[in-house]
Amino acid sequence: MQQNKIVIFDTTLRDGEQVPGCKLNADEKIEIALALENMGVDVIEAGFPVSSPGDFESVKKISRVIKNSVVCGLSRAVKKDIEVAALALRFAQRPRIHTGIGTSDFHIKSKFNSTRDEILQRAIQSVKWARNFTDDVEFYAEDAGRTENEFLARVIEAVIKAGATTVNIPDTTGYCLPHQYGEKIAYLIHHVSNIDKAVISCHCHNDLGMATANSIAGIMNGARQIECTINGLGERAGNTSLEEVVMVIQQHASLNAFTSVNSKKLTSLSQLVSDTMRVPVQPNKAIVGSNAFSHSSGIHQDGFLKDAQTYEIINPEQVGANQSKIVLTARSGRSALAFRFQKLGFNFDRNDIDSLYNQFLKVADRKKEVGDEDLQEMANQYQALAVSV
Amino acid sequence: MQQNKIVIFDTTLRDGEQVPGCKLNADEKIEIALALENMGVDVIEAGFPVSSPGDFESVKKISRVIKNSVVCGLSRAVKKDIEVAALALRFAQRPRIHTGIGTSDFHIKSKFNSTRDEILQRAIQSVKWARNFTDDVEFYAEDAGRTENEFLARVIEAVIKAGATTVNIPDTTGYCLPHQYGEKIAYLIHHVSNIDKAVISCHCHNDLGMATANSIAGIMNGARQIECTINGLGERAGNTSLEEVVMVIQQHASLNAFTSVNSKKLTSLSQLVSDTMRVPVQPNKAIVGSNAFSHSSGIHQDGFLKDAQTYEIINPEQVGANQSKIVLTARSGRSALAFRFQKLGFNFDRNDIDSLYNQFLKVADRKKEVGDEDLQEMANQYQALAVSV
Repeated sequence: MQQNKIVIFDTTLRDGEQVPGCKLNADEKIEIALALENMGVDVIEAGFPVSSPGDFESVKKISRVIKNSVVCGLSRAVKKDIEVAALALRFAQRPRIHTGIGTSDFHIKSKFNSTRDEILQRAIQSVKWARNFTDDVEFYAEDAGRTENEFLARVIEAVIKAGATTVNIPDTTGYCLPHQYGEKIAYLIHHVSNIDKAVISCHCHNDLGMATANSIAGIMNGARQIECTINGLGERAGNTSLEEVVMVIQQHASLNAFTSVNSKKLTSLSQLVSDTMRVPVQPNKAIVGSNAFSHSSGIHQDGFLKDAQTYEIINPEQVGANQSKIVLTARSGRSALAFRFQKLGFNFDRNDIDSLYNQFLKVADRKKEVGDEDLQEMANQYQALAVSV
Repeated sequence: MQQNKIVIFDTTLRDGEQVPGCKLNADEKIEIALALENMGVDVIEAGFPVSSPGDFESVKKISRVIKNSVVCGLSRAVKKDIEVAALALRFAQRPRIHTGIGTSDFHIKSKFNSTRDEILQRAIQSVKWARNFTDDVEFYAEDAGRTENEFLARVIEAVIKAGATTVNIPDTTGYCLPHQYGEKIAYLIHHVSNIDKAVISCHCHNDLGMATANSIAGIMNGARQIECTINGLGERAGNTSLEEVVMVIQQHASLNAFTSVNSKKLTSLSQLVSDTMRVPVQPNKAIVGSNAFSHSSGIHQDGFLKDAQTYEIINPEQVGANQSKIVLTARSGRSALAFRFQKLGFNFDRNDIDSLYNQFLKVADRKKEVGDEDLQEMANQYQALAVSV
């Protein structure tokens, strides 16, 4: 069976840059955009051109330098937004306009004070406006996660008919459980007659910590694009993490899917984005956290040293991280201690390690982590004792 | 239909404390344990007594002060481990011994150089040893995520017969997709004849970013305990986040479940653990990140100000966080600007805001975030101009 290509749509420069304190200048954005292209990202959402003159300029500059990836600009379902987006994208080799409108009753009533029929007409109109400028038009049904399926299907069918080539089904509030989000995608596959003319896209937020699982549920039910950000940055608790979905797809053959992303560049991209946006990545962040490949408990270290596969499903080299670490704490066992002594050039036998281990535990109960210097000192003392007997 | 109580088993002090650099002294552990009890956590895994003298002492001290929560100590399927755990727990009002062994072929062969039958016998024996000390015995089938279902069911049936009252099905390597983990739990429900005599527990790791979704899939298929940590701390990419599972269960009535955790204490617990363990929580962490309730894009801010439900599913008060923030950046719109001016005491009308907005965008393009001082200055200049005309 042929594997399905999953389009990776990165919105670090748009949804990610909305994070308080994350605003970048145009040069920083260009640097990140080039790195994303170089890693094999298919679509780069570069900004929301109408939102500010600075954002407009950045989208324009990114459009000039990106050659292979699609460059995408966001807009509301407003004529001026779309025209400004088209203007910002006019130098792009492969421009995409991303337009749309809220389709849930919450949005229709509270935000637009409108009706379903009016929203439907505005959706169709926005896609037609965008198609005047490019053949690559993506439509977002904002808050699709809370939109009733029957109305959502009507909107999606209508915008595909109007020319949308990608349809984005965002779980804007990060509310869905994976099976619910998956069922929504399956519903569209089965109830939108022209769904084969467009790519279904997953845009999930992480408010309940399930954005990655929701996106994968989308893929399992027929979606073929995932919108995501480096380090999971984005509005509130953020978006789906690019590094997580790429590695889930790479690790799980049963998904029968692949991406064009070179996973070996994930760690350096993560660091670049963290540094330029000045948002730390927590040590226990999946895939790119500094501890993601650290083994510290004695049981784990012992198993890991016998066979890395015992506790590790991803070889750190696959994501461009340094070698797995064996961190010595009071939880570490003798095999980890011997391993670290060996790395320092000491070849102690089993009896030596037994004697050294008690000494090690005392140091470890006092200190958070036993480092090379501590080990060196222990080894020196031990050898001095051995000589003096 | 009666709601199912989900037992919340916190392992911040055991699996969480294995994180490099996170080692705590006994006083810090007692402070966290009391806070966990006070929040309504059912089971507190306090440590791994045999692993070091310091850990033994901490478990002993925690056992003396905790009155309502079960206090649990970890052990391998080794007689001495279990005896030491029992000794550390001897002052606990409600002691639990948590023992177990690796059941996947990876573990059986690489780690133990053993056979399935031998492992099965060791599993049974360990539970019997533990039952000599307490009626509350939990058995973990390490690497259950990669253990073949038929053998796993045999082990679980045998340990329940031997006296285990909780059976823990860990996805030790964080490898499972939610539907796979859910199917594993369902398999046990349907193939273990005495499964009604024990509680099934989910212990998931976050290596692929899906620990929360996997735990919820477990609950949907019949599990009734979730093992988790504050801030998702733990080995490598960490464990399931306590705050995420508690809020998913609270938000999703369709799960037909509840916990005894007082969610209003989640934010303060998160800060206590982050401070004492010195592990930062990234701003975009679900539920407890500093941005988890920040709205920054213009579209979102406008919708949010009309009705918080447009973009927010959890009221920050539910988790004890401060009021949602409206952060002003170049992406903010007129309504957010007017809201912030109003908070500073300026009552500008629509025309004023239109004039001020262009000035605001210039400042916002230059600065990452427009603060109260900037607004004050803008307002003063604007009013000075208005007077001079």
